[in-house]
Amino acid sequence: MSGPRILIVGGVAAGMSAALRAKRHNPDADVVVFERGEIISYGACGLPYVLGGEVRAWDDLLARTPPQVRAEGVSVRLRHTVTDVDADAGRITVRDADGGSRTEPYDSLLLATGVAALRPPWMADGLGGLHVLRDVPDGRAIDASLRGARRVAIVGAGYIGLELAEAFRRRDLSVVMVEMAPRVAGRMLDAAMCGVVQAELERNGVDVRTGVAVEGVTQRDGSVTGLRTEAGDVRADAVVVAVGVRPETALARAAGAGLGDTGAVAVDDHQRTSADGVWAAGDNCEVRHRVTGRPAHVPLGLAANRMGRVAGVSMAGGDARFPGIVGTGIFKTFSLGVGRTGLTQTEAEQHGLDAVTADVTAGDHAGYYPDTKPLEIRLTGERGTRRLLGAQIAALNHESAKRIDVVAALLHAGATVDDLADADLAYAPPFAGVFDALLVAAGRLQRALD
Amino acid sequence: MSGPRILIVGGVAAGMSAALRAKRHNPDADVVVFERGEIISYGACGLPYVLGGEVRAWDDLLARTPPQVRAEGVSVRLRHTVTDVDADAGRITVRDADGGSRTEPYDSLLLATGVAALRPPWMADGLGGLHVLRDVPDGRAIDASLRGARRVAIVGAGYIGLELAEAFRRRDLSVVMVEMAPRVAGRMLDAAMCGVVQAELERNGVDVRTGVAVEGVTQRDGSVTGLRTEAGDVRADAVVVAVGVRPETALARAAGAGLGDTGAVAVDDHQRTSADGVWAAGDNCEVRHRVTGRPAHVPLGLAANRMGRVAGVSMAGGDARFPGIVGTGIFKTFSLGVGRTGLTQTEAEQHGLDAVTADVTAGDHAGYYPDTKPLEIRLTGERGTRRLLGAQIAALNHESAKRIDVVAALLHAGATVDDLADADLAYAPPFAGVFDALLVAAGRLQRALD
Repeated sequence: MSGPRILIVGGVAAGMSAALRAKRHNPDADVVVFERGEIISYGACGLPYVLGGEVRAWDDLLARTPPQVRAEGVSVRLRHTVTDVDADAGRITVRDADGGSRTEPYDSLLLATGVAALRPPWMADGLGGLHVLRDVPDGRAIDASLRGARRVAIVGAGYIGLELAEAFRRRDLSVVMVEMAPRVAGRMLDAAMCGVVQAELERNGVDVRTGVAVEGVTQRDGSVTGLRTEAGDVRADAVVVAVGVRPETALARAAGAGLGDTGAVAVDDHQRTSADGVWAAGDNCEVRHRVTGRPAHVPLGLAANRMGRVAGVSMAGGDARFPGIVGTGIFKTFSLGVGRTGLTQTEAEQHGLDAVTADVTAGDHAGYYPDTKPLEIRLTGERGTRRLLGAQIAALNHESAKRIDVVAALLHAGATVDDLADADLAYAPPFAGVFDALLVAAGRLQRALD
Repeated sequence: MSGPRILIVGGVAAGMSAALRAKRHNPDADVVVFERGEIISYGACGLPYVLGGEVRAWDDLLARTPPQVRAEGVSVRLRHTVTDVDADAGRITVRDADGGSRTEPYDSLLLATGVAALRPPWMADGLGGLHVLRDVPDGRAIDASLRGARRVAIVGAGYIGLELAEAFRRRDLSVVMVEMAPRVAGRMLDAAMCGVVQAELERNGVDVRTGVAVEGVTQRDGSVTGLRTEAGDVRADAVVVAVGVRPETALARAAGAGLGDTGAVAVDDHQRTSADGVWAAGDNCEVRHRVTGRPAHVPLGLAANRMGRVAGVSMAGGDARFPGIVGTGIFKTFSLGVGRTGLTQTEAEQHGLDAVTADVTAGDHAGYYPDTKPLEIRLTGERGTRRLLGAQIAALNHESAKRIDVVAALLHAGATVDDLADADLAYAPPFAGVFDALLVAAGRLQRALD
């Protein structure tokens, strides 16, 4: 093998995408993946669905096994932790499963180290029944804690907390959700949309406590027995903390690669860091937000996989570019689907944009069609330029929230509110009203922008 | 009332939209709607769903009643048939319910006459159990024929035929579908997609006979007893003929308004015909197809309503323009949803475009998520320019076919295949795979275009 030596740290989304793309692009390359854990290439977004029982087994989340990856010519070293990078010398230090340490030279290095769950200061290690959810071992540990439990507390009302609330109710557990902010889903949505989410949680028996800061846990015999909050104690047999994530940047810093203002690794559109020969891809990286034109840290699965592909091709000598994101996200909690893309009104104002928002409630199918459910749409545009800035959709037929993609695609293309209002969207009674709810929202926003 | 006198022929989709818009734009206008039938403003697209029982009553399809419309200041004359137009004199001849005829002067006239069902030469009037489906009286007549029936024949496998097949099976009737063309849905889809539709029909017990021309009916005692075809007789207690529509252009021709090559009324983007003071809107009109840049006749609900709005505002002195269409259509038959937009490969070739198509089968949700069903996507682009030309989607979770809107919106904006491939579409396991099936299709088409 006379090709370049490409080392990859991290074998989940971005890392594995990069490895396979690099090998396909340059079959002579020596591609080695170092994964700290025991499994590679799994769908981390599916963890709540195994806990809720919709997905039968943890192994169902595996996209590829090490033998499958090796069959494509990529070397995989499990339980190998990369502890240091010497970018000047072009080598990394690796500790293997037995604790032995050695160095490995590289021509190109990819840091696909992802994110770690944020742990509040009061979160003690080693306490039974106290969890975060980032990987399969976390999921297995939560699952074990839930056996015999009656009541679970979820700290944090973001994507993971909201998905877990449904999962735990499916297991017939009582669920208390404690959120420090005044509203659930408040980091993803404008305040006007958050009430729909809270109503869906409460309709499904979740005890939602917003505006409540957690101060610590109560415990007995090495296991958590609940939360201490500023509003009193909350008894719980298990606690899952889902208050956000932070990029894993220790190796990037060791390599001398610059971080951006967001705290994530700064990369160009080929996924190159500022350190020679060092690349980064995935949730540990910043991405360019096409609506603001500025770097952002939005750790989500599609961008991570796409960055991995770009890095893999680029490291193998090809030319691929990451196209940026427009801030699309979607989640389901109980029957409710919620999607967002671009900027919320609040975010647009934070970026100094002259934003105008229209709110519409409309049926997701023809009014007379059975099972037509309301869609709440919030559409935001820019005064003057009339360009689309963003949208938020909440849908009681959860699938209907996927209509956010129409706005996401138009944002990517830099379209105006008028482009959306005039679009020839599909109509038949089982799919939409004659004027799709998005068209109704766009029409209303047009008038607000006139 | 000193405003202009605006007369409107036809009170369903385009006509009623125009009337209300005109009145709102110029409250002084004298707006009168002449409707030949007994009801106005109903959802014609819902007719199959009343026949299938999903919608309880014919009246559920009514969007507005005459009193509601009158309350907005629009006059409505039911059972009034406009029989002639004198565009030079600016007046129409109207026959009222009692058979009396008189003339009415106008400042502006809108022809919103829609389409008529095509009737094959062998289709005798007055024969019991032999039907077309265009309006509520047709629907009621079919409903009456079905009571006591065991087996129904549907002639034609277009939108209406496919929707009726499901409706009749819901009523536990045997259904024979006879189509002259070699494939079902062959006018909407490329041949490669039609097999999915036929399989869904057959999986649900529909006896599909393609490539069979109907030569006539068999009858007894004034009622139909079946079809005579070149492949033998087909016994049936009722027959619905759904072989297409033709624009109702008699009044346009009387007015001296020009027709286009499609046979429908030619209009500009304000919905003006070539005859002074005469406008046209709805299914009787041509529309500009934004992908081909040429006039087309695509009689569907959204465009009809939108043309009505444009005509109403324009006739009342405002400035509105019809944005054109991109040829979006969607239907459901049984569990299958099928959407199309832009041009099929076949249509693109007919227009002399250098078109390339990619086919993809992918899950509509994450592979491990329950009830994930395959999506068949066929995406077409233009060599050289790389612009998107069209898409076709067939989805066994019917709602997933609504993803056609992403391509429809991008076509409207003149986007490329690369724009779609790079789009930041929403991902979470209950909604899509990490790379939405549309992104997978776009990636494959990119490579085919390289």
